[in-house]
Amino acid sequence: MIETRLTKAFGLDHPILSAPMALAAGGALARAVSEAGGLGLIGGGYGDADWLEREYRAAGNARVGCGFITWKLAEQPELLGRVLERDPACLFLSFGDPRPFAAEIAAAGVPLICQVQTLDHAREAVEAGAQVIVAQGGEAGGHGANRAVMTLVPEVADYLNRAAPEVLLLAAGGIADGRGLAAALMLGADGVLVGTRLWASAECLAPRPMLEAAVAAGGDATLRSSLPDIARGLDWPAPFTIRTVENDFTRRWQQDPEGLRAAGGEAEAYARAAAEGDASMAPPIAGEAVGLIHDLPGAGEIVTRIAAEAEGLLGGGWRR
Amino acid sequence: MIETRLTKAFGLDHPILSAPMALAAGGALARAVSEAGGLGLIGGGYGDADWLEREYRAAGNARVGCGFITWKLAEQPELLGRVLERDPACLFLSFGDPRPFAAEIAAAGVPLICQVQTLDHAREAVEAGAQVIVAQGGEAGGHGANRAVMTLVPEVADYLNRAAPEVLLLAAGGIADGRGLAAALMLGADGVLVGTRLWASAECLAPRPMLEAAVAAGGDATLRSSLPDIARGLDWPAPFTIRTVENDFTRRWQQDPEGLRAAGGEAEAYARAAAEGDASMAPPIAGEAVGLIHDLPGAGEIVTRIAAEAEGLLGGGWRR
Ligand SMILES: Cc1cc2nc3c(=O)[nH]c(=O)nc-3n(C[C@H](O)[C@H](O)[C@H](O)COP(=O)(O)O)c2cc1C
Ligand SMILES: Cc1cc2nc3c(=O)[nH]c(=O)nc-3n(C[C@H](O)[C@H](O)[C@H](O)COP(=O)(O)O)c2cc1C
Repeated sequence: MIETRLTKAFGLDHPILSAPMALAAGGALARAVSEAGGLGLIGGGYGDADWLEREYRAAGNARVGCGFITWKLAEQPELLGRVLERDPACLFLSFGDPRPFAAEIAAAGVPLICQVQTLDHAREAVEAGAQVIVAQGGEAGGHGANRAVMTLVPEVADYLNRAAPEVLLLAAGGIADGRGLAAALMLGADGVLVGTRLWASAECLAPRPMLEAAVAAGGDATLRSSLPDIARGLDWPAPFTIRTVENDFTRRWQQDPEGLRAAGGEAEAYARAAAEGDASMAPPIAGEAVGLIHDLPGAGEIVTRIAAEAEGLLGGGWRR
Repeated sequence: MIETRLTKAFGLDHPILSAPMALAAGGALARAVSEAGGLGLIGGGYGDADWLEREYRAAGNARVGCGFITWKLAEQPELLGRVLERDPACLFLSFGDPRPFAAEIAAAGVPLICQVQTLDHAREAVEAGAQVIVAQGGEAGGHGANRAVMTLVPEVADYLNRAAPEVLLLAAGGIADGRGLAAALMLGADGVLVGTRLWASAECLAPRPMLEAAVAAGGDATLRSSLPDIARGLDWPAPFTIRTVENDFTRRWQQDPEGLRAAGGEAEAYARAAAEGDASMAPPIAGEAVGLIHDLPGAGEIVTRIAAEAEGLLGGGWRR
């Protein structure tokens, strides 16, 4: 078993958290991850109280955390209290300034985890009193920015070492197997946050054809864009774009995002495609890690596989 | 000492190659890297026969390799023979199809190293009979494309494992210290190619103020663009862009590359700034790793530092 500051702080068997993936990571996924010895997070995302209620129920007695998209939470801050009442294992914030929510989270005695994309974000997270910082690279699936894990993680590690050595550090972006976990530990992380690999799982709430399209794609077939956000009418702030698999939709509009904005009719078609799993219209939301993913097992099995493979590598298995 | 398939194949003490950085990595840099137990490469780049002659002389008796920008070599293929006559330790090709040059290199008995940015490039390199493939992530300094080391390296490793298990694999992009080397080994690489960290060295041929500007920058202050190529009138093919430190010049033209193309007068000013070390006009060519670089030591010291730090981490030093 791989013991790190993260496993000790949260009482885990494996230094692995599941990403709070909006609409995709529900109670069943989070529960499976926690029961396998990681820590599962429910994807509170844009903040739908009914959805959260239902998925919290699906998690049953499992100890899970919950994540929000920070700039969206700012539009309905009352949601935070409703989740804190459930005593989540952690409250995860990403994409926006966490500082306005820090006091309420601290008062509830819930550990705050902040996902950051730049050094400035890391400084904000430290100011917010985050117990854990997740350094997210642009290779990640879903929203993110442009730094790479390979440099962002050690640079944030150096910063924390100087400014806040008690804050734990996780790596996020492109981690799909034991190689990624072992590499993240070498870069100075205390563990990892896994999105795409756990999205491609039996428990994911996204329609199955989406998962299958992602599994079929190689790592070169993803891109960062704002196209899905334009189609959904979501006003994401800079510098955040969303990484998806390439498809007919992204190829059609990639050079002409303003044309998409003007084509009002696309919004409805997009929503229908996302719900029905039409991966040629609504692109699967997944990262470069799709090139490392070839199956759709249970989330628990994914966690134990990653941990076992990393343990082998750390024990000298990297030699060949 | 870290022993890998790379150190055995090339008789090195450390699994570290220096990047053949055009105009910056001359004979003194390559020699220092080889004498420290890595393998140094001269940056043949765009192919200037006189420059190459001089820098080969500067390398003295040290065993060094030589690199070319493939699409540029195709415009003056006779240069290849002149370098092969010197029996280089390796011939390194990047940015273009290596297959037209493969037979001549093989006939000279010189190991071919191909740097690749996508899985398709990796397939071309295997067809070309490359002994070593360097998987370069977009975090790299200088020209490159968009994949991240974190996913490209294991994905190419899986491909090679199936298709050409005898081909060695290096990681390039964002590797500036032992953490990066140790992480690369975990990802399935046999070693690393280091650019930016060795560019920021005493032996680098770029003007000192360029190095100082890069050392002062954080990792968030670099970008990929085509601006320097537009200013220099270099016709780089897709998908390659060049990562530099941000400066007044990149901020001015970033949203208006066509304006720069139209502003003919910029070319001369740019060339002068690059030669004189005016880092506000000609941006330092360096990668995200600048955020991990705080000094300008000798290249040999850099190599031994990276190796020693990685050895400590691989021996269990990652725990904390
Ligand atoms: C389908 C999907 C949805 C995501 N939704 C969210 C979200 O709602 N909130 C969030 O903080 N991060 C979200 N992310 C990003 C993750 O937090 C994480 O940074 C990322 O998945 C890590 O990279 P990986 O996908 O390569 O594992 C999402 C990622 C995916 C793949
Ligand atoms: C100043 C500079 C010049 C470069 N010139 C070349 C070149 O002429 N040919 C080449 O194949 N790669 C070149 N590269 C890219 C390197 O081969 C290598 O991929 C890169 O430096 C690795 O990433 P890093 O800079 O983060 O170490 C250059 C890189 C830098 C920083």
